[in-house]
Amino acid sequence: MDTSPADRGGDLHLDLSAGRARGLGLRAALEDALRGTVREGRLAPGTRLPPSRTLAGDLGVARNTVAEAYAQLTAEGWLTARQGSGTVVAERAVGEGVAAPALPQRTPAARYDFTPGRPDLSLFPRTAWLAAARRALTTAPNEALSYSDPRGRIELRRALADYLARVRGVRTDPERIVVCGGYTQGIGLLCRTLRERGAAAAAVEEYGLPHQQRLVEAGGLAAVALPLDAAGARTDLLAGLDVGAVTLTPAHQFPTGVALQPARRAAAVAWAREHGGLVIEDDYDGELRYDRQPVGALQALDPERVAYIGTASKSLAPGLRLGWLALPADLVEPVTRQKLLADGHSGAFEQLTLAEFITSGGLDRHVRRCRQHYRRRRDLLLARLAERAPAVRVTGLAAGLHAVLQLPPGGLSERELLQQAAWLGLAIHTTTGNRAPAAGPRPDGPPALVIGYGTPPDHSFPAAVEALCRLLTL
Amino acid sequence: MDTSPADRGGDLHLDLSAGRARGLGLRAALEDALRGTVREGRLAPGTRLPPSRTLAGDLGVARNTVAEAYAQLTAEGWLTARQGSGTVVAERAVGEGVAAPALPQRTPAARYDFTPGRPDLSLFPRTAWLAAARRALTTAPNEALSYSDPRGRIELRRALADYLARVRGVRTDPERIVVCGGYTQGIGLLCRTLRERGAAAAAVEEYGLPHQQRLVEAGGLAAVALPLDAAGARTDLLAGLDVGAVTLTPAHQFPTGVALQPARRAAAVAWAREHGGLVIEDDYDGELRYDRQPVGALQALDPERVAYIGTASKSLAPGLRLGWLALPADLVEPVTRQKLLADGHSGAFEQLTLAEFITSGGLDRHVRRCRQHYRRRRDLLLARLAERAPAVRVTGLAAGLHAVLQLPPGGLSERELLQQAAWLGLAIHTTTGNRAPAAGPRPDGPPALVIGYGTPPDHSFPAAVEALCRLLTL
Repeated sequence: MDTSPADRGGDLHLDLSAGRARGLGLRAALEDALRGTVREGRLAPGTRLPPSRTLAGDLGVARNTVAEAYAQLTAEGWLTARQGSGTVVAERAVGEGVAAPALPQRTPAARYDFTPGRPDLSLFPRTAWLAAARRALTTAPNEALSYSDPRGRIELRRALADYLARVRGVRTDPERIVVCGGYTQGIGLLCRTLRERGAAAAAVEEYGLPHQQRLVEAGGLAAVALPLDAAGARTDLLAGLDVGAVTLTPAHQFPTGVALQPARRAAAVAWAREHGGLVIEDDYDGELRYDRQPVGALQALDPERVAYIGTASKSLAPGLRLGWLALPADLVEPVTRQKLLADGHSGAFEQLTLAEFITSGGLDRHVRRCRQHYRRRRDLLLARLAERAPAVRVTGLAAGLHAVLQLPPGGLSERELLQQAAWLGLAIHTTTGNRAPAAGPRPDGPPALVIGYGTPPDHSFPAAVEALCRLLTL
Repeated sequence: MDTSPADRGGDLHLDLSAGRARGLGLRAALEDALRGTVREGRLAPGTRLPPSRTLAGDLGVARNTVAEAYAQLTAEGWLTARQGSGTVVAERAVGEGVAAPALPQRTPAARYDFTPGRPDLSLFPRTAWLAAARRALTTAPNEALSYSDPRGRIELRRALADYLARVRGVRTDPERIVVCGGYTQGIGLLCRTLRERGAAAAAVEEYGLPHQQRLVEAGGLAAVALPLDAAGARTDLLAGLDVGAVTLTPAHQFPTGVALQPARRAAAVAWAREHGGLVIEDDYDGELRYDRQPVGALQALDPERVAYIGTASKSLAPGLRLGWLALPADLVEPVTRQKLLADGHSGAFEQLTLAEFITSGGLDRHVRRCRQHYRRRRDLLLARLAERAPAVRVTGLAAGLHAVLQLPPGGLSERELLQQAAWLGLAIHTTTGNRAPAAGPRPDGPPALVIGYGTPPDHSFPAAVEALCRLLTL
């Protein structure tokens, strides 16, 4: 227990007033407070107490009073005097502290995890990130550590405006960017802003992140499902839906993997213009494409009608909790106000680090490396499937972190498939599981799997693919 | 412009499909796309374009096609060929990009800033923090970089449970702690949870953070003012207010500086028990006390009726945006759900760093240093005031980052005082400015200043105090 901060002269809060109020003398009140502290488990067994001189100074009492109180509690068995290491909390001291709440237990981790939407975290460039953090924090002015612009640090907004223009074709300006806590917070800020402006509902894609509809509803809007087909979301149907906004994944629909076709892109923007609506573009994995002709951001078609949301969760790490909005001019002020009310602004240190990481070229290098890595994984997955389960059809773009596997008719039902997967130690997701509740039940048909090939660690990836092939040939 | 990421082979998004759709050939479509990119300002003047070989590879076209397109745009003046440094965007290329939105201008920074609630940021232990970040990120498992428990990293929740018990007497458990984006997000999560449970209103202290009432209202609750007197908030009046919760600053009322007296503490908890209410304890500067008998957390009186909120904003830096809730057991699940909807969880990297910083004793060391620093500042302020403006009465505990200066009757009005302060280059705040709107106008009387003596940088602190003394003797 030599690492306890109390060892190095840390604080120990002791309230003598309760004992004093009950008429106890100074020493008795101190003993009472110390006893309570140990009994309640506030100090773990083995924790070293401050030297009597230090505690006496803190409490403004004579050193002897503290020494006597320590001796008394040692006699009572609460404390132990250790040769050369002062007084420590005795091992027997049991807490009568507060009970932990009963929370739903998490399911144990599967052996082979194909949960979609997660990057391979072993790729995270820890050394380069720490170097960027050092450069950023060493050179940042003091005011960067204080409360700042709710939109985020200007250094990051500038870096993002350049990066998004160059890499995703986004037409924006640092003044229109709001840094936020991932896509989750970004969509929440937008929905609350829209509700404030009188919107009552937003369209969500028929298939999408399981969380998506809940986020829209938590933002105060009703969610209405927008059908999908092979050309992407049916934006041609928006005019009939009576919604104030639509969330889309134009570059790479999640989970189906299709790209929103040009006519559908045009229809989305035309709807927004005619009906005063807002298109919310979720560009979650726009940088991770393996084809040669990347699809640029829909936002470029009309920066005043499309709010762009990007994230570091796929290109870097979800744990960073960094996302960004590129907003129409008239939404900047109200979304900034929502951000101020939500949490003031996002953490400045990570923002400064990401800004440095982008401007020094670290993000470009990292994304290139990731692309090669995921492309190799995808190629391996496809090759093994073609060999072992040729009836399975892989659909969706050659992009991002997931593939959709359409199973042939006549095989296992979805329920049987999920049961068998659990037996094989496989965590798999289906398109049904990524269906918006507002869309109603999925039409009948053979199951389709959404395979996140970024999730398994490198060493177990081949074995995970083998287990998947076994499942598909049952 | 040698630092542009594009120089090092970064991505350049070019959409040839628009030109192709208009019937252009490959080279013409490429020229069209490049021209648009430069014209819209997506590439700043001086930015170097990728070598033709690289871009050709990315686009899947012949290298010659790219070289010819570069030559054509150079001829048109959009690009410049530089000896030995490839092709760069010409200086004349003007953007027709998006316009920046018109936002309210911030007032220029004052020469001497006494804004309350801000630590002296020159004290922030950058080196020790970076060292903790390095240790934390180097040793963290990969899963720490992924999505995690909405309550926050277990490493930090454990460290906080120990620290809060030891330093503030908080009775909690890591399972009951939710890490959040500062006090701002914490109060929001609580208010939304209470509203979901049917609460309609919360009491706020008559004087408090200007933001406080807005945060409660943004969380969906009406704010009702609770009067203050010399013994702190009038918690004895809570039963008459018809509220579901009350927010208090028991250790050091903001801004008046009084400590909530024992009878008022008992009354708050008794009200919560009898009426099923919740006490929200805002312990914003609990560690920063210069007196010898610190006031422990009210939460310890009844951990099932008091939700404790702490923050790193005063003890470390507001820019970190890290706060924490220690919750009653029955609030853990619903508050965790609100956190999940708000932003998933707080940034893992900063959480791991803070956990390492606490367990290695860095926070204790830093807080001790801050205390000495602020105590010296406070002593200097008091000594100068006693000398120069003896009629001014300094009230409030010897704690935290601010003092309240009661001006004698018969002097300047509050409005005159603020005008004169502006002339002297002083940013000062008054108790009136920190009055909850729900409390109605402040009763008549001479003005009282809330002087944040943590805010000025060290080198200008004596001059700032002199300017303040000048103001007070006008």
